[in-house]
Amino acid sequence: MLQDFTARTDPSQGPERLARLRAEMAREGLQGFIVPRADAHQGEWVAPHDDRLAWLTGFTGSAGFLIALEEAAGLFVDGRYRVQVKFEVDTTVFTPVPWPETRPADWLRDKLTEGGKVGFDPWLHTPDWIARLEDRLEGSDIVLVPLSENLVDRIWEDQPPPPCGKLRVWPGHLAGKSHDEKRRLVAADLAAKGEAAAVLTLPDSIAWLLNIRGSDIPRTPIPHAFAVLHADATVDLFIHPDKVTAEVAAHLGAEVRRHPPETLIGALARLEGLVRIDPETAPLRLWHALEAGTAVPQRGPDPCLLPKARKNPAEIRATTAAHERDGVAMALFLHWLDERLARPDHGLDEIAIVRRLEEIRARHPLFEDISFETICGAGEHGAIVHYRVTERTNRPVRPGELVLIDSGAQYADGTTDITRTVLSPPADAIPRAARDAFTRVLKGMIALTLARWPAGRTGADLDPIARGALWRAGLDYDHGTGHGVGVNLAVHEGPQRISRTGSVPLETGMILSNEPGHYREGKWGIRIENLVVVREAEAEEGRRMLGFDTLTLAPIDRRLILPELLDAEERAWLDAYHARVFEAIAPHLPEESRAWLAEVTRPL
Amino acid sequence: MLQDFTARTDPSQGPERLARLRAEMAREGLQGFIVPRADAHQGEWVAPHDDRLAWLTGFTGSAGFLIALEEAAGLFVDGRYRVQVKFEVDTTVFTPVPWPETRPADWLRDKLTEGGKVGFDPWLHTPDWIARLEDRLEGSDIVLVPLSENLVDRIWEDQPPPPCGKLRVWPGHLAGKSHDEKRRLVAADLAAKGEAAAVLTLPDSIAWLLNIRGSDIPRTPIPHAFAVLHADATVDLFIHPDKVTAEVAAHLGAEVRRHPPETLIGALARLEGLVRIDPETAPLRLWHALEAGTAVPQRGPDPCLLPKARKNPAEIRATTAAHERDGVAMALFLHWLDERLARPDHGLDEIAIVRRLEEIRARHPLFEDISFETICGAGEHGAIVHYRVTERTNRPVRPGELVLIDSGAQYADGTTDITRTVLSPPADAIPRAARDAFTRVLKGMIALTLARWPAGRTGADLDPIARGALWRAGLDYDHGTGHGVGVNLAVHEGPQRISRTGSVPLETGMILSNEPGHYREGKWGIRIENLVVVREAEAEEGRRMLGFDTLTLAPIDRRLILPELLDAEERAWLDAYHARVFEAIAPHLPEESRAWLAEVTRPL
Repeated sequence: MLQDFTARTDPSQGPERLARLRAEMAREGLQGFIVPRADAHQGEWVAPHDDRLAWLTGFTGSAGFLIALEEAAGLFVDGRYRVQVKFEVDTTVFTPVPWPETRPADWLRDKLTEGGKVGFDPWLHTPDWIARLEDRLEGSDIVLVPLSENLVDRIWEDQPPPPCGKLRVWPGHLAGKSHDEKRRLVAADLAAKGEAAAVLTLPDSIAWLLNIRGSDIPRTPIPHAFAVLHADATVDLFIHPDKVTAEVAAHLGAEVRRHPPETLIGALARLEGLVRIDPETAPLRLWHALEAGTAVPQRGPDPCLLPKARKNPAEIRATTAAHERDGVAMALFLHWLDERLARPDHGLDEIAIVRRLEEIRARHPLFEDISFETICGAGEHGAIVHYRVTERTNRPVRPGELVLIDSGAQYADGTTDITRTVLSPPADAIPRAARDAFTRVLKGMIALTLARWPAGRTGADLDPIARGALWRAGLDYDHGTGHGVGVNLAVHEGPQRISRTGSVPLETGMILSNEPGHYREGKWGIRIENLVVVREAEAEEGRRMLGFDTLTLAPIDRRLILPELLDAEERAWLDAYHARVFEAIAPHLPEESRAWLAEVTRPL
Repeated sequence: MLQDFTARTDPSQGPERLARLRAEMAREGLQGFIVPRADAHQGEWVAPHDDRLAWLTGFTGSAGFLIALEEAAGLFVDGRYRVQVKFEVDTTVFTPVPWPETRPADWLRDKLTEGGKVGFDPWLHTPDWIARLEDRLEGSDIVLVPLSENLVDRIWEDQPPPPCGKLRVWPGHLAGKSHDEKRRLVAADLAAKGEAAAVLTLPDSIAWLLNIRGSDIPRTPIPHAFAVLHADATVDLFIHPDKVTAEVAAHLGAEVRRHPPETLIGALARLEGLVRIDPETAPLRLWHALEAGTAVPQRGPDPCLLPKARKNPAEIRATTAAHERDGVAMALFLHWLDERLARPDHGLDEIAIVRRLEEIRARHPLFEDISFETICGAGEHGAIVHYRVTERTNRPVRPGELVLIDSGAQYADGTTDITRTVLSPPADAIPRAARDAFTRVLKGMIALTLARWPAGRTGADLDPIARGALWRAGLDYDHGTGHGVGVNLAVHEGPQRISRTGSVPLETGMILSNEPGHYREGKWGIRIENLVVVREAEAEEGRRMLGFDTLTLAPIDRRLILPELLDAEERAWLDAYHARVFEAIAPHLPEESRAWLAEVTRPL
């Protein structure tokens, strides 16, 4: 099920649904109701069953929330979606609110001057989110009310059922550690802190811990499930029995006890001792269940986050193979694109490019899915950082512009994410300012790739390194430099991150994207992205230092570089990288593509 | 009163004094007593009257504290002083404790397992320092007891009296703003927050606010005084009347009411309303006085800190002139040093170099003092980051080594701080590793000089930029990259700072040092330091960016550079910087020195 290009929603659907929601609010004596994009697992992708925000409003962005009041309906969306939201919703009834610039508490205080009750579904919000909102509402007469039923579900007649995708086993040779080992490892962490158990609500944590993969949502092979890991290393797994094949049941074994999801609340109420729960990611409903029971809830991070982020050598070998395979697909694709764009009558548009790229990737037997909706922005569309082409926005590629393509795949052994910005000839039609920016983006990408740093430094410490060359020219980009990436798991994972908010020390085995960019609204977008993995690096006596290895293998468009802006070290890196790309990829290409690759990877 | 080179203390002085302190502790029923290095103003330099820690122990470092117990005496010193402390104190009675690695609370818990009373002088500790210590002692039976008399003062028969240096007026053409304007500006900040007044305890804040300078301690022209700034922009200044000349009295005028220092506590007790006091810098004694009175103490930063840090154009003009003058002195000094070191029989040692540098600086009529004790480390002494040469440690400069000289001056119009690392010939005796490190330190210094960044970024964001070239070679340095610098005020001032702890956004007019380094213990030390000032920089539409101008003007030793490690931009910077140094300094030099300067500043 690859990408489709139809607009999935329509602005006209919203007003009538909002009216019905308001009728339910009135019936419950509420002055407001909050509809978040998130599901109970707080992931980036949701199942159709959980796509309440899109169904109600028409807004399909990956983050945001609606606060519906009797007279107003504020749709809170961040900078990525300011433009998109205007096309997707009927702004005569939904008011886009810039977020986080406008705090929901301030907006509520402004609209509900008399106070009022605002309902929410405690399955869809974390304890920290609600606590922050309550803190900021202090002194107002506005009260947040957790509801036992979601009001959108009540009015959504043809709501799809919750997903029930089959599980599969994640093989031991790719995982590097059995789930038995992993459970013991993480349980030891709980025991050391005197905790009796931890509640797991993040599907990729559960998938990692138990060496399983799921098929409940597109793009990320995770199962919707909850779990309790006990300090004795056994697990209670709450999952729909239809998802569990016989093979998976055998793989899980006796120490992983399976239960129907509806027994979760009761089970939490019966726990004893200190029980860790992550207030940033767990549903508030589960916190309430612990509080109402016999355990003492203990705030703490999901204990799988860090061990999952620190990939072991088997996982790195697995994803390295996936990246080589993806490099072959990218070379075939870029060769095709380059040849087509060279013809004056190429007739290519954004959708045709996305289709071709996905089709090439999908040919491989280990391909499972794309890892996110491919971004293909030609010309000014490149400046829309999270652009997703639809039939409505599709546009031809014109001569003398840039095309930004950000894409990735889920293979059976790894997850890829790569961005290349390529030339639609002729080169001399590209403004010098764009080539200057392209070269500075590349310099930043190389500077981060070559960076070495004392162990203990964080992504926040490295972020300026990727921006330095742009900053020196008065340029910048309004997104982070890098996100964590899983191995046949989420293409966006934490806690590792290269950005101002990256406060976690980077550790060996962490996979991150390295993707500086530059965007000129209405003109062009540039981004160059490789995935890198943290490794030990040489250092003088008495110090421990870390550095990166690059996983991604695909040529960078040399025609867009201003060579005089690169120093000797940068040129040497680029030439060596291109030589490595050729060496790894060429043997897997047909003759014609091999010749093309030799040409585009020759020394600068 | 320039630097002297005699060891000011002796390890033999400590044991008998400690015994007498313990007798006083016993008389007061105390099991312990804390002796900090700080005075009531928490500055880096203290008057002889306040030098209790050195008198008691022999330790002369600029930070640290002693906790004296009945059986043990822990002298807490940081990494800079690990070596020095061993020479300065009798370690059979004083035990050096690595700090902050060992927390005083943990040390106390370990030593006072039965609990006990530990006295301290509430004039010498801040509320935050005591509160943190109390927090960490929670659950133990150890109690901190503020005393009304300092036990060291009681046993110190010939304690010098508190300083009583005369004030002088800081002229309006250098200040850029009258004290009337400044008081109104800062008072408006208080009024906006509903605060009736702020307590000022930092002498450089008071000096800045009232456009005065003092002479109570060496190296920093500040007065020991306290003040209360009211929201109506009037000030109550608590200062010894003998410090106030008729000219200063006229300058201060009627809106600055003067009071004897001993009336401070009573005056604080009579304040009304919210009164701001900085819990990180004010004495706990003043917090207690507010609490005991009719005001409501309000935690908040000293309101002068930020406006003082953001130098106005007049202040920048003033210190620019001081830096040109200091550049002339440095050129004369470096010329002399270069000529002397070229002679095989030069006979130079560290003390001779310091004396000559200070003597050259002191020739100028606007010279007032050195801004800190000159650091001159030859060979392996260069690796001791805060080395201060004494007759005991003095060593000749040998052929084929590096000499690190970190120095500065207080002129009537500005404060300087500069480090140069120079060659003692022959060059080919210098190991390649040292020249490699020198070049990487220079690359870091240039990278930070050329950096531009979006307004709002902090010193923590810029710190990695200065380290990048060293990091890439597995090297680093264990100190911050830059500290704030005043204008004829403290050579170390906050809140601006370039280091991991630099959390304050940099703003235009802030002066900072830019001083990466590299140290190989037992071999060499390298540091290159210029002062820079933050200014507006060009940026693409929709952004505001900042950058640096360089204040310091002195040649960098070209003979230590490995030119092949510099890129074109770095070479261009160095050549342009050297050309600027020549142009600014040469007209003020005698012919022979001018020829030398032309030679050492020629393009690389």
